[in-house]
Amino acid sequence: MSTKEEISAFMSHAFPASSFTIVEAGSKRATIRRPVTQDDLRPGDTVSGPTLMALADTALYVAIHATLGITPHAVTSNMNINFLRRPPADRALVAECRLLRVGRTLAVGEVSLFSEGMDEPVAHVVGSYVIPRERPSSGAIRTTDPE
Amino acid sequence: MSTKEEISAFMSHAFPASSFTIVEAGSKRATIRRPVTQDDLRPGDTVSGPTLMALADTALYVAIHATLGITPHAVTSNMNINFLRRPPADRALVAECRLLRVGRTLAVGEVSLFSEGMDEPVAHVVGSYVIPRERPSSGAIRTTDPE
Amino acid sequence: MSTKEEISAFMSHAFPASSFTIVEAGSKRATIRRPVTQDDLRPGDTVSGPTLMALADTALYVAIHATLGITPHAVTSNMNINFLRRPPADRALVAECRLLRVGRTLAVGEVSLFSEGMDEPVAHVVGSYVIPRERPSSGAIRTTDPE
Amino acid sequence: MSTKEEISAFMSHAFPASSFTIVEAGSKRATIRRPVTQDDLRPGDTVSGPTLMALADTALYVAIHATLGITPHAVTSNMNINFLRRPPADRALVAECRLLRVGRTLAVGEVSLFSEGMDEPVAHVVGSYVIPRERPSSGAIRTTDPE
Repeated sequence: MSTKEEISAFMSHAFPASSFTIVEAGSKRATIRRPVTQDDLRPGDTVSGPTLMALADTALYVAIHATLGITPHAVTSNMNINFLRRPPADRALVAECRLLRVGRTLAVGEVSLFSEGMDEPVAHVVGSYVIPRERPSSGAIRTTDPE
Repeated sequence: MSTKEEISAFMSHAFPASSFTIVEAGSKRATIRRPVTQDDLRPGDTVSGPTLMALADTALYVAIHATLGITPHAVTSNMNINFLRRPPADRALVAECRLLRVGRTLAVGEVSLFSEGMDEPVAHVVGSYVIPRERPSSGAIRTTDPE
Repeated sequence: MSTKEEISAFMSHAFPASSFTIVEAGSKRATIRRPVTQDDLRPGDTVSGPTLMALADTALYVAIHATLGITPHAVTSNMNINFLRRPPADRALVAECRLLRVGRTLAVGEVSLFSEGMDEPVAHVVGSYVIPRERPSSGAIRTTDPE
Repeated sequence: MSTKEEISAFMSHAFPASSFTIVEAGSKRATIRRPVTQDDLRPGDTVSGPTLMALADTALYVAIHATLGITPHAVTSNMNINFLRRPPADRALVAECRLLRVGRTLAVGEVSLFSEGMDEPVAHVVGSYVIPRERPSSGAIRTTDPE
């Protein structure tokens, strides 16, 4: 297990452009928050789907670190997203992740995405990460990185 | 049904920032192409997951227009993505969409995503769009718009 | 909204072969329970995947009735299942469903499936139902019915 | 790689109750067929959702054997199903599977399900199998077995 501070330090170093903060992280769970900027918006005064997906993916990644220790080479294999409500443009996003299983090969978790201060989720994600057997010799191998 | 030209005109107007082109479109299918720029990359010299998702979503949207005529208010309800291989940073992306069903309420399709010139897909997406009963009185309501 | 008793009466009448009971049902939620019989088992002394899927689907259907009133013509459009742990052959199954959104067209919910008395889920399902605009003139149209 | 005959022999031995036949199998693909019996039906004169899911799962399993050789301990981790049309009660089912990726850890494939003799699919499935690192010491570990 890694602490919230250790994970934040790793993420800032590996993904310097990322703008999220870790609200809470522990065994099999993480909550992260991210402001919404002009770049994240879409016509209709709402947040883009890829912004939501990227945040959910990051929440899963943080929860895996919090559970297994820093695991940089874990890679997303599957994500299933349901879009539930339009997120307003003027609220930050909060992602609450709960890991359903952390096996030797695969970690599976769900994420509820909220516009900050609202009760009903704007989207729901279930995702799977492949946990590498050993560290590859070089390079990051994630295709979905925090923004 | 709308032609490739009609759909291109609609998309350029509605989403002026988008950079994809329609390679082919017809009843229940569409192929689109998009260059990869620095903004789409991630550590590991690869394309980000959200870039792949956004392109797949656009391919579904184009295929719905090609089948039903321009349907601006169709909205993504579900997407399921499997990441299969690392897309190289220096190749354009091609999305081949096939609609599996176009009902009165829901359209369902699959999309294979390729790095241009390669045989094996980098990702595979299945997505659902809700087809609106009538046009809402104002505003676009898509959460995932073409980039 | 329909009560637990009303839903039980409807389900027993429409699907006389079904063996589940409603533990609890209310707005946007339902918990149901089902014994495991020899017919549900698979080599390895475990419960079959289709048995799990059928129970999750029923839990979603019950939760929709509890929220909207009896809605017999709601039909499953999408299910996404993650298999997490092997359910033992000698325990009943419990499905806890929570609806994430109930719109005019689509209801989306998640279901955690447990072997009774165990803390960790054996499977997790997210599913979508199409809510019919009006009742079709005849016949049930569900493809996945309770067993 | 295993031939169609080798896979049939393995499946009949491991799952004697199964009723499907392998129409065709080769590297990264398989087509299987299964009659529909009274037990598979649901109100509305149609085939149950779990019957469709079970057949898709079997098609994936057969395609993995055809690609990697007999791999009995491969287990389903994720399935995503879209129900597209009502399968009539009086036609056999045909499942056409194509594997999208066969890695060391995970195999991912898609399956189109048809009522025999009809052009449009009744359902579409994308599924993932975990490929075991080594054989477990005993017992089958699949949760979804052919019927």
